[in-house]
Amino acid sequence: MLLKTSADGSLRALRTLRQVVLASLCVCISFSAAASPAQEEDSAMENIVTEKKAEESHRQDSADLLIFILLLTLTILTIWLFKHRRFRFLHETGLAMIYGLIVGVILRYVVQVPRDASVVSTSCFVNASPATLLVNVSGKFYEYTLKGEISAGEVNDVKDNEMLRKVTFDPEVFFNILLPPIIFHAGYSLKRRHFFRNMGSILAYAFVGTVISCFIIGLLMYGCVKLMKHLGQLRGDFFFTDCLFFGAIVSATDPVTVLAIFHELQVDVDLYALLFGESVLNDAVAVVLSSSIVAYQPQGDNSHTFEVMAMLKSFGMFLGVFSGSFSLGVATGIVTFNKVLNGDPYVTKFTKLRDFQLLETALFFLMSWSTFLLAEACGFTGVVAVLFCGITQAHYTFNNLSPESQDRTKQLFELLNFLAENFIFSYMGLTLFTFQNHIFNPMFIVGAFLAVFLGRAANIYPLSFLLNLGRRNKIRSNFQHMMMFAGLRGAMTFALSIRDTATYARQMMFSTNLLVVFFTVWVCGGGTTQMLSCQRIRYMSFADGIERRSTKQESAWLFRLWYNFDHNYLKPILTHSGPPLTTTLPPCCHPLARFLTSPQAFENECQLKDDDSDLILTDGDISLTYGDITVSTDATGAHTSGGGGPAADDLDGELAYGDHELVMRGTRLVLPMDDSEPSFTGHLRM
Amino acid sequence: MLLKTSADGSLRALRTLRQVVLASLCVCISFSAAASPAQEEDSAMENIVTEKKAEESHRQDSADLLIFILLLTLTILTIWLFKHRRFRFLHETGLAMIYGLIVGVILRYVVQVPRDASVVSTSCFVNASPATLLVNVSGKFYEYTLKGEISAGEVNDVKDNEMLRKVTFDPEVFFNILLPPIIFHAGYSLKRRHFFRNMGSILAYAFVGTVISCFIIGLLMYGCVKLMKHLGQLRGDFFFTDCLFFGAIVSATDPVTVLAIFHELQVDVDLYALLFGESVLNDAVAVVLSSSIVAYQPQGDNSHTFEVMAMLKSFGMFLGVFSGSFSLGVATGIVTFNKVLNGDPYVTKFTKLRDFQLLETALFFLMSWSTFLLAEACGFTGVVAVLFCGITQAHYTFNNLSPESQDRTKQLFELLNFLAENFIFSYMGLTLFTFQNHIFNPMFIVGAFLAVFLGRAANIYPLSFLLNLGRRNKIRSNFQHMMMFAGLRGAMTFALSIRDTATYARQMMFSTNLLVVFFTVWVCGGGTTQMLSCQRIRYMSFADGIERRSTKQESAWLFRLWYNFDHNYLKPILTHSGPPLTTTLPPCCHPLARFLTSPQAFENECQLKDDDSDLILTDGDISLTYGDITVSTDATGAHTSGGGGPAADDLDGELAYGDHELVMRGTRLVLPMDDSEPSFTGHLRM
Repeated sequence: MLLKTSADGSLRALRTLRQVVLASLCVCISFSAAASPAQEEDSAMENIVTEKKAEESHRQDSADLLIFILLLTLTILTIWLFKHRRFRFLHETGLAMIYGLIVGVILRYVVQVPRDASVVSTSCFVNASPATLLVNVSGKFYEYTLKGEISAGEVNDVKDNEMLRKVTFDPEVFFNILLPPIIFHAGYSLKRRHFFRNMGSILAYAFVGTVISCFIIGLLMYGCVKLMKHLGQLRGDFFFTDCLFFGAIVSATDPVTVLAIFHELQVDVDLYALLFGESVLNDAVAVVLSSSIVAYQPQGDNSHTFEVMAMLKSFGMFLGVFSGSFSLGVATGIVTFNKVLNGDPYVTKFTKLRDFQLLETALFFLMSWSTFLLAEACGFTGVVAVLFCGITQAHYTFNNLSPESQDRTKQLFELLNFLAENFIFSYMGLTLFTFQNHIFNPMFIVGAFLAVFLGRAANIYPLSFLLNLGRRNKIRSNFQHMMMFAGLRGAMTFALSIRDTATYARQMMFSTNLLVVFFTVWVCGGGTTQMLSCQRIRYMSFADGIERRSTKQESAWLFRLWYNFDHNYLKPILTHSGPPLTTTLPPCCHPLARFLTSPQAFENECQLKDDDSDLILTDGDISLTYGDITVSTDATGAHTSGGGGPAADDLDGELAYGDHELVMRGTRLVLPMDDSEPSFTGHLRM
Repeated sequence: MLLKTSADGSLRALRTLRQVVLASLCVCISFSAAASPAQEEDSAMENIVTEKKAEESHRQDSADLLIFILLLTLTILTIWLFKHRRFRFLHETGLAMIYGLIVGVILRYVVQVPRDASVVSTSCFVNASPATLLVNVSGKFYEYTLKGEISAGEVNDVKDNEMLRKVTFDPEVFFNILLPPIIFHAGYSLKRRHFFRNMGSILAYAFVGTVISCFIIGLLMYGCVKLMKHLGQLRGDFFFTDCLFFGAIVSATDPVTVLAIFHELQVDVDLYALLFGESVLNDAVAVVLSSSIVAYQPQGDNSHTFEVMAMLKSFGMFLGVFSGSFSLGVATGIVTFNKVLNGDPYVTKFTKLRDFQLLETALFFLMSWSTFLLAEACGFTGVVAVLFCGITQAHYTFNNLSPESQDRTKQLFELLNFLAENFIFSYMGLTLFTFQNHIFNPMFIVGAFLAVFLGRAANIYPLSFLLNLGRRNKIRSNFQHMMMFAGLRGAMTFALSIRDTATYARQMMFSTNLLVVFFTVWVCGGGTTQMLSCQRIRYMSFADGIERRSTKQESAWLFRLWYNFDHNYLKPILTHSGPPLTTTLPPCCHPLARFLTSPQAFENECQLKDDDSDLILTDGDISLTYGDITVSTDATGAHTSGGGGPAADDLDGELAYGDHELVMRGTRLVLPMDDSEPSFTGHLRM
């Protein structure tokens, strides 16, 4: 209903987990080769042949999947080697892509598979394409399920190379199985004070910026396509909506590589928050935007003319789907969890779920998944709902969990995220060679790279200028350059563009997007360290903090507004923390306030300061490396700085892994924002 | 190749994860009802209709799965309520079954679905049944994949009630997706000293006992079937091999319910170890046994005569598959993990994987999964391989993991086990009403219950008698009665019998097995507490320990033999613990010994005592409740016992949740086996 993309895709939609298992690398020819002669065994019973075939197919599937798992294992071992050697030029995702590429080359050019006899083409007397087909083969009935439509040109491909087709697996897998844990984990990690401090800017970059970027890229590509048509380089249709769609899907940034280095080197926390927050939210915007563009369907025969009503409908759909998914995610996050996990006595009467961590964790996992499914069942976007569910849970529910469950859930989603991410990236590498309908058009590719670059620039620079008008704590030009540079494309762009590769335009987009992802991950990701020192961000961020210290309190009026509301009303209602409502609501509302506040909140009243610590949770991760300057703190609190170079780097590493506690305390003193927190909180409470 | 069962099943084999997602409860008619009218929208383009259909189907799938997840959530919440109320008569699995039953009844009798138009029967001009079918529908090609053969009688069912068929999902899901985590977790939990102390008895019960039980049940059922034929109650074929197959699959015990209560009440540890060890290992035996029985195929036309060669072949297959799976599991467990995770310098050169817990956990997870796949790809049984991989890892690899990863992996597999188990049991409840080919034959059912009872008796009592001849620490009659009583059937029986329901015999078996599982889980599981007090096991186990203390050292010669070998040779080679090989090998082998021993082992030499603590790892779980007797320990080590009753129960609970440390120390003093451990170790080292 919403997505044209889902025409082929959604039919196979959620049903496609099987492909994770089925499709994969068919390298293990040895197994099938060993099993094949057995077929010729002299047996009268047809049954046994079928059996052997089935068994063989099962073994083949297992072997295929095994290779994929070994690929992931190999990636992990290599990452470990890199971490051990402190090699920062290649992130694990880049590495996974390289391994995928290698296996793709082998599959494409080395392994030769005999023409598959198990594909039969037939003309049946059916008028439509039913989901289930019962085929009567000489008295026996076989059940077949619809996998999808195949264009006439592909028919021979299907027969020719079943193996490569097997490897190219159902695109809905990415959307429905691999993306949700990644997105949820991103949302669940957004629990940082600096995210909320920079919320206004982040929202601007993510919403306004993505829309700008989408339209700029769309327009530029339209020009490029027109030119190509003029030069006779275009062999199929390419409409303006296709260009806009390309703009939408390529606007979702995924700077996971850059952020990993930021995290390791402890680059400025505000820059980190801006980049991370933007990339998390613009994924959501890009998903909904692209589906709205696809839904643009003017009435009448020519479906690619401009029509106001259709555009308004698309716009309405964008707002509807986004706000629907948003509310659903937030609602599930808040209501279910807090009321259940919280064990508010007036809701559940039992207060001890915290004692059963396994139940708590299982419930958490199931509820997160059901948010996704609920959104999909309602026609919203599951990925977006899961994102906001994650953010809400990190902010409210996390505090209600028992400490063991906090660890468990964090670790569980970390693991799922890690596996899913590396799987997607290695599949990306693989698909460059195994996907059968690539269309690499040099002119389109050059145009796309240019458009992506300009689109990103049109997002960052003008918005930063405008934001700086309102911000006291300016986003300086070197930060802007860094954000420009960190516009990597990744899993979301890939998942959106592989979702539908039926038309000429979509195939060209897919091929081009793969190249964009490869280029940005390897070149931009690999060059992050150089770019940082080139932009002198590492040095400046340290000197910087001191200056900013004085302006901090006035800078984020949006944050302060939000913080007040959140601290005084939302937290007391939704969690055990925060001041009791009786102290924040006017006296006339006291009966209501007493009803809504949990007894624990009254008990906790004296320890209110601790509750704010959830906003600075991940500061614990911050070690004391500022580029080449090593800062350590001695007992008297004096700072000691050492010169740069590899020796200092090694020392940082030792410190970071060695005494984490010390490092944390060091940071508190080094980062000017942290030690001023009490006074800030005090200020708010006045 | 190996399994006849896999004739229909394996073709769909691993490809079936999708069914987890696809098939489920179709209760959410509201969603489809809301979406249906939209179909009639006046749109000229056929595409849009297809799109809408696809979208609708996707939403329907999401809604279906959502209901299943909500069912699990409901189960969790109810379990929590039960735990809170200390309600022990119904275990979570029994509860999941009840919820499943309720939903099954609703689906079957309440929800009415219109006859599905999406199933079309056709006769095509194909000779065979290819895996992929390309159907040409008025110029467009659609790809269909083979789902399986359908018997002529079922054809109308398929058309009549697509919804119920959707809910009845691919049986291979259980075998390839849900069972592995359960089995692995069982193996991974087998890390108990008492398991190794009773190894001889456990192996006897699991191997000899299961085979005895299988043949006794097979013979009895054959008699029953003959009688039924005589009385004209049999409407189809039922051969002796079918009876044996029934014996094999119904011999796999699953006393998870009983063990949970044992764990909670702290029933005698030896009894616990005997029951748990037997149930874990007899699953493996039953799987391989049943596949060997299916593989029994005499040559010639009549495939159900007795033939020595075919029987020997089956027997050889049993040995081959079992030992193959066993070695593969153990090998993967030992080699990959210990060499990699251990970071033995002569293998990997990098010693710091322990520093990256995420990588370590991911590697652990992937390698466990690859064991399963490797076994399946080689034609062995993945479940069995995974079991022994789990046992090996618990024994050796666990010690090499970093403490964080020990927690992480334990929690991860605990969660997977919990979810998979409850899913299977709730599906079991569901399938009683939604499965369309049930054959409930009262005579067969009565016969089966009797046979199962007698088969269990023929396993436990004679074997216990024989074992008692060799054991110093006798298995007393009340223990034997308890083991007899605890012969519950569960997930494995279900998974094996749902795997193939093509023939009349198999359908009758499946229906009967469901009833056996229901009965044993509810009646035997629910009556565990009564049975325990009736057999006076709770009181005796406490008095018992003191008596046994003196006989302990002589009792387990097999254990001692194994322990010596393991401690002196295997551990030093495979882990960092144990004495350096240079001290245990003769002087001539010293160069080799020095090469094989890791440097850490030399460093650890002084703390050898600590290394043995892995054998008593799970003793920490033991709280100090002995039925109605509460035992606490004061500072002087004197025991205080309080009378029974609910008040004492409450106190136990408080103690168990409150001060775990105290409880553990308490146990050490209470359980006579624990405080004698140092002297025992010393004895061995002499």
